[in-house]
Amino acid sequence: MTMYRKNIKEMAAYVPGEQPAPGAKVIKLNTNENPYPPSPRAMEALREFDGRRLRQYSDPHASAFCQAAAEVHGVPCEWILAGNGSDDLLAMIVLACAEPGRKVVYPTPTYVLYRTLAQMQAAPFVEVPYGPDFELPLEQLICENGAVTFIARPNSPSGTSAPLEQIEALARGVCGLVVLDEAYADFSHDNGLELVKRYQNVVALRTLSKGYSLAGLRLGYAVGNPSVLAMLNKVKDSYPVDAVACAVGAAAMGDQEYMSKCACVVRSSRAKLLEGLSGLGFRVWPSESNFVLAQAAACMGNCAAQRIYDRLKREGILVRYFKEPLLEDKLRITVGTDEQNATLIAAIAKILEC
Amino acid sequence: MTMYRKNIKEMAAYVPGEQPAPGAKVIKLNTNENPYPPSPRAMEALREFDGRRLRQYSDPHASAFCQAAAEVHGVPCEWILAGNGSDDLLAMIVLACAEPGRKVVYPTPTYVLYRTLAQMQAAPFVEVPYGPDFELPLEQLICENGAVTFIARPNSPSGTSAPLEQIEALARGVCGLVVLDEAYADFSHDNGLELVKRYQNVVALRTLSKGYSLAGLRLGYAVGNPSVLAMLNKVKDSYPVDAVACAVGAAAMGDQEYMSKCACVVRSSRAKLLEGLSGLGFRVWPSESNFVLAQAAACMGNCAAQRIYDRLKREGILVRYFKEPLLEDKLRITVGTDEQNATLIAAIAKILEC
Repeated sequence: MTMYRKNIKEMAAYVPGEQPAPGAKVIKLNTNENPYPPSPRAMEALREFDGRRLRQYSDPHASAFCQAAAEVHGVPCEWILAGNGSDDLLAMIVLACAEPGRKVVYPTPTYVLYRTLAQMQAAPFVEVPYGPDFELPLEQLICENGAVTFIARPNSPSGTSAPLEQIEALARGVCGLVVLDEAYADFSHDNGLELVKRYQNVVALRTLSKGYSLAGLRLGYAVGNPSVLAMLNKVKDSYPVDAVACAVGAAAMGDQEYMSKCACVVRSSRAKLLEGLSGLGFRVWPSESNFVLAQAAACMGNCAAQRIYDRLKREGILVRYFKEPLLEDKLRITVGTDEQNATLIAAIAKILEC
Repeated sequence: MTMYRKNIKEMAAYVPGEQPAPGAKVIKLNTNENPYPPSPRAMEALREFDGRRLRQYSDPHASAFCQAAAEVHGVPCEWILAGNGSDDLLAMIVLACAEPGRKVVYPTPTYVLYRTLAQMQAAPFVEVPYGPDFELPLEQLICENGAVTFIARPNSPSGTSAPLEQIEALARGVCGLVVLDEAYADFSHDNGLELVKRYQNVVALRTLSKGYSLAGLRLGYAVGNPSVLAMLNKVKDSYPVDAVACAVGAAAMGDQEYMSKCACVVRSSRAKLLEGLSGLGFRVWPSESNFVLAQAAACMGNCAAQRIYDRLKREGILVRYFKEPLLEDKLRITVGTDEQNATLIAAIAKILEC
């Protein structure tokens, strides 16, 4: 007998986007962080947090935070389950639903972690390709009838959102859980929460990492029918959310005005960034998110995307490049401030001139 | 097809110890928290933490914290892996090692979460009873040869520690991983870190919840051979430790003097508490931890332990009662301040008089 499970020995670890050393002077457009600081009310909650409270365990259900999230979404508190980032909730869902013989299904390209999580549970995973313009492969997804179907909406790395009517058809068509990974919903013109309310097999995941600018706090939550959350509750960590995250997260949720204002600025910058990249000859998909996917033009030469990625990195600008089928000629670029985006555009223009 | 795995539907959620509402006036001796506040240096790190840093993702490896822990234990940084509390590391170990056909083995009574984690992975679990004075059932544990063998050392709820020579024999005798759950090691006269250094299949888990008085921060770590940690790294969350916990935890680890001083006071109070309970007629096992296990005497009447637990609770004193075989006549009592312990002893004395 060996020490580890076969599936674990064979799998590769998920590699998150590069995090430069603290204090490094880079323009960081690679992991879809918000360019603006967290809400002043969240920062105040952090400053006022009494460190002596850390002596005791945190609330196992992070009730203060869940209450704040429930109010924002107009659902009872029992419809909210908090976790250590929305990745934690993704892992809980795969653990509760998938195993050998119970498959995980999702359209690709998308968030690579879905595959990693399926591999951890030795569960089969079926990757159904999106259409050329990221059209949802609805019929095939229904036909696969996964124990879990993940839909990142907006999707990463495309930035696009499948129409809600198609998500509804998916929810009707499959027996398993449909997970709307709505990490980027705060930058989007719509979301799937109404479907969550209407279909018991639909659950939405949200995070405070993007819209709320709290990626370093590790706080995410599920919005779902209490029958779904009761099952996830069985596999949750005893105290997944620390006391600081609970207090700061509750304050951030309570300041919707600030979040919306920042998201609005990001959307406006996104339009300008998209225009700038198009002007340089990239094909850019319409984005509902805080990043854009830009495809290098054939005239830019071989391996243009990777070459631009490397050159930008040397100049202190980080964007995301995925060396994977369908993505090798593309860059995923986080929307920064207008100034950062202008610097990026100028840097790419210079690279293309060479 | 149903939405969830059979093992998940059938299992019960782990129920952590009761957490009274914030501000409730109780003497809380039920979840083995430290009665003293966190290190002043940890509190200072919290106060000085710049909230704007939360905008970006935290360090995936919590390097600043791991560096501090590595220095304390005299190992290279690669021997430390941080998680969202040591429960997170327990879950990672079960996920990496156990599945149907690969069993989890541990002596009982012990931390109930080991069973819950095995159930989550549909892994068989073998519970080998401790001897009447919590002697390690070494031969049976070796004979079971688990993919993982958990030894809580000191053990909860007994407070006792199996001799290190027996742990060494166990490490030599099994093919799988031997996990020393050393959550309470800071209150103990010895620990298993030398075995970790000498045996590749031994890993120790530590937490900042007990000795460092940071239960609400959710921070734990594994000390293990890099080959073991590389495998656990595959199943870890991308960013398990938030930026605040990393900074505060590093500061706490850097203040060994404060931790040792508090642990020393707790050990001295433990001796007095043990004496007080013995004086009331309880049998109390010698404890290496920050709690004691007290067995009600036959002369105290039927269901004495549960009755005392209930009465204490009504009077605002929480202790832990496990309605389980072998524990029904016992109470697990956290060592509080001398004043809290004296109040407890007086309250029990009064209950026994009735």
